[in-house]
Amino acid sequence: MTDAFAVMNAIGLVGFAFVGAAKAIEERYDVFGVTVVGVMTALGGGTTRDLLLNRVPNSLQSPGEVALSLLGVTAAVLFVHFLDDGHQHPVVLTADAIGLAAFSTTGALLGQQAGLPVFAVVALATVNAAGGGAISDLLLGRTPFILREDFYASCAVIGGLAFWALAQIGVSVSVASAGCALAVLLARGLGIGRGWSLPTVQAWERRDAQ
Amino acid sequence: MTDAFAVMNAIGLVGFAFVGAAKAIEERYDVFGVTVVGVMTALGGGTTRDLLLNRVPNSLQSPGEVALSLLGVTAAVLFVHFLDDGHQHPVVLTADAIGLAAFSTTGALLGQQAGLPVFAVVALATVNAAGGGAISDLLLGRTPFILREDFYASCAVIGGLAFWALAQIGVSVSVASAGCALAVLLARGLGIGRGWSLPTVQAWERRDAQ
Amino acid sequence: MTDAFAVMNAIGLVGFAFVGAAKAIEERYDVFGVTVVGVMTALGGGTTRDLLLNRVPNSLQSPGEVALSLLGVTAAVLFVHFLDDGHQHPVVLTADAIGLAAFSTTGALLGQQAGLPVFAVVALATVNAAGGGAISDLLLGRTPFILREDFYASCAVIGGLAFWALAQIGVSVSVASAGCALAVLLARGLGIGRGWSLPTVQAWERRDAQ
Repeated sequence: MTDAFAVMNAIGLVGFAFVGAAKAIEERYDVFGVTVVGVMTALGGGTTRDLLLNRVPNSLQSPGEVALSLLGVTAAVLFVHFLDDGHQHPVVLTADAIGLAAFSTTGALLGQQAGLPVFAVVALATVNAAGGGAISDLLLGRTPFILREDFYASCAVIGGLAFWALAQIGVSVSVASAGCALAVLLARGLGIGRGWSLPTVQAWERRDAQ
Repeated sequence: MTDAFAVMNAIGLVGFAFVGAAKAIEERYDVFGVTVVGVMTALGGGTTRDLLLNRVPNSLQSPGEVALSLLGVTAAVLFVHFLDDGHQHPVVLTADAIGLAAFSTTGALLGQQAGLPVFAVVALATVNAAGGGAISDLLLGRTPFILREDFYASCAVIGGLAFWALAQIGVSVSVASAGCALAVLLARGLGIGRGWSLPTVQAWERRDAQ
Repeated sequence: MTDAFAVMNAIGLVGFAFVGAAKAIEERYDVFGVTVVGVMTALGGGTTRDLLLNRVPNSLQSPGEVALSLLGVTAAVLFVHFLDDGHQHPVVLTADAIGLAAFSTTGALLGQQAGLPVFAVVALATVNAAGGGAISDLLLGRTPFILREDFYASCAVIGGLAFWALAQIGVSVSVASAGCALAVLLARGLGIGRGWSLPTVQAWERRDAQ
């Protein structure tokens, strides 16, 4: 389990950094800006999680995580112009989904281990998984994509709830982690495959009015 | 005093979450986005205050505060379309003003108890009271309304100064808290009633030029 | 050395606050907004650095730093309309460059003293020096200027690397600090003098295509 999880985490760091860097290239940021946005997409969620848990961020202490993020940035710089709409490529979407699962699990696990209640477990899973993308969007002058119609951060919410529910019924941390990661992957895969998105309040009202 | 304060805090959490969620609905955010923006408006100021004071945020440890925020979000989803310009309704403005008073007081109190100087007491009162709204505005792709012409965050500054001044002359914490809350309510009430706003530097220069 | 450094730090606080306040005046923010943006430009980088290092921010505990920031804001309010394009005036650019050098050095030094690896030393130098400007830009509804074509944050990166390299070869903290500050000043001076900017990825590709 631990090895599989480390692999997922590594894939996620590269994938997130690729997506962030590709968006910054699209906005014609300079190479420093592309690097910052890519690294923040990969490490920003975990950094925010650590700030909320009152710890020195892991990202400042893990040269390996930084190296993987820089690898994702480099891949985007070298390859993004060979792809149409590069951050929607199936390989990129898959790496991103694996990262979403790995980062949700880490966030939920650390919240649970800190003895925090269910809201905090779910919030830390979501911040860890989707916080980097939200910070990047702000740095790119966009409103965070996770707050508009989609089915992305919702997968982290589902994963956090799954982790918490499994921990409540007394399974081991490994099983709860596996359940969380699988729930996120399943939700994200279904969401992409079926084009799911959450409704707006306006959409609810229109439906009620019919 | 403590009971009255807990009631004010609860009203403020519901009111702030309502205002934030109403703005996110206006921007056609999806229901996840509406929830995040509403909850951040209610809990974001206190969370930032706790990060600055180097503590695990109270918001992650208080299911009650989360529940009150979600209540405010739910109220906005259900009722905002019955109101024209919902977050300006007198009931909403009143709940928001009560929250401004309660949150300013908490921020000033914690700054004072941490033994920090007057700037920090005022800054923590202001961040606690107005930080959630500022974070929400950034999440909505707007510049923070508190930095443009209005008389909103200024009420928290006045409250923070009142708390610090009362504490300096040696009154009890309860009296300083009551003084802070009353100063904020008075300033905000007068500000709304008389349409106060702070001038821009340009306005000063035009006046000097006449 | 220590005295020279304190003077550089003081000049930087005034200069950064002037630049931030001048930008907020340009955007017609009210006097509260101008003060917040100016103070955040001066103190926001150090505050973020302290959050990352898990310490109560120095800015909340140093009335002197706050006073210098308010002095910079006041100078901007009084004088900015006598200058065309005030935050590009040679005196302002010089004060800003001195601040960039002083703040990079403080960030690198604290990262080194916390026993963190090279990425963290460089990241803390950069956040400390360029973070305040980035936060201000977000508060002004702009994308952070440091991420677009320029040669500004790059100077802090160079300074952080210089500090780390000097510390690796075993020189004293004073010498590493002086080396860092000089590297930043030299890089920034050359950057301004010669109109340096970092390329975009698109610019690289165009050059390759020729």
